[in-house]
Amino acid sequence: MATDVVSLAGALDPRDGWAADDCPVTHALDLAGNRTSFLVLREAFYGTTRFDDFAARVQVSESVAAARLKALVGAGLLERRPYRDPGERTRFEYRLTDKGADFFPILVALTDWGARWGGRSQVGLEHHGCGGRLAAEVRCEAGHVVPVGEADLVHVP
Amino acid sequence: MATDVVSLAGALDPRDGWAADDCPVTHALDLAGNRTSFLVLREAFYGTTRFDDFAARVQVSESVAAARLKALVGAGLLERRPYRDPGERTRFEYRLTDKGADFFPILVALTDWGARWGGRSQVGLEHHGCGGRLAAEVRCEAGHVVPVGEADLVHVP
Repeated sequence: MATDVVSLAGALDPRDGWAADDCPVTHALDLAGNRTSFLVLREAFYGTTRFDDFAARVQVSESVAAARLKALVGAGLLERRPYRDPGERTRFEYRLTDKGADFFPILVALTDWGARWGGRSQVGLEHHGCGGRLAAEVRCEAGHVVPVGEADLVHVP
Repeated sequence: MATDVVSLAGALDPRDGWAADDCPVTHALDLAGNRTSFLVLREAFYGTTRFDDFAARVQVSESVAAARLKALVGAGLLERRPYRDPGERTRFEYRLTDKGADFFPILVALTDWGARWGGRSQVGLEHHGCGGRLAAEVRCEAGHVVPVGEADLVHVP
């Protein structure tokens, strides 16, 4: 059993004195925190750009895929751009914005955790040309590796 | 606009030849990928242990809190243990297991992304005694920092 938790520092101690109304985790989940949204983003990272491919690969109905893509475009994680194959009508493709591409550590952290604690996995992420398996390592700005017991939750004015 | 995506390597190229049925991301989301579950885990990392506190701090009904706690116990991320205050009946508290504590990089990655791309945030994570802000940095086993353009998605036999 793990006993270490994050320490509540300064104005956040004691815990009963506040509630995390404007928590960045909540914000991230509001923008992308639906199961299907995560999987749509995963597909975007795998190079999927077209509506039909998103629906087929995430294995959701076209209406669900359309709703999730629209929400991710609205949240600024995907960009919708017109394209046209020869002899076809104009269609739209979806690509990661910088905001969406910055979701990469979250995807890696989920992939790593799911592989470590999961059932069988068919896929994994490796460093190109090196072969080292990818993980999301918690570090501070000063470069220190930070275990959960050394993390402080602080008030941001 | 970000153009880099993960490269599909070996048996995973082309993308149309497979679907991510046993994907570790899917597995992670199946275990913990409900918005409320993420927030319950966040609270567990902040030191919340008691049923009433989870419900109040995540701001969900008692029945929703009970369902999420039960699911997280069933998935092995939380452990349910009896405790008894003097003069009270036996109650139960919930603590992170090793599997749950290993969710820390995911929480940090969500916190960091939400703070960077979000609206205002009241809280943030810092390194105790150092003050450096925490982020989840994508690295490979060999210690290299890996941008998304250097990531390969590979088949795991």
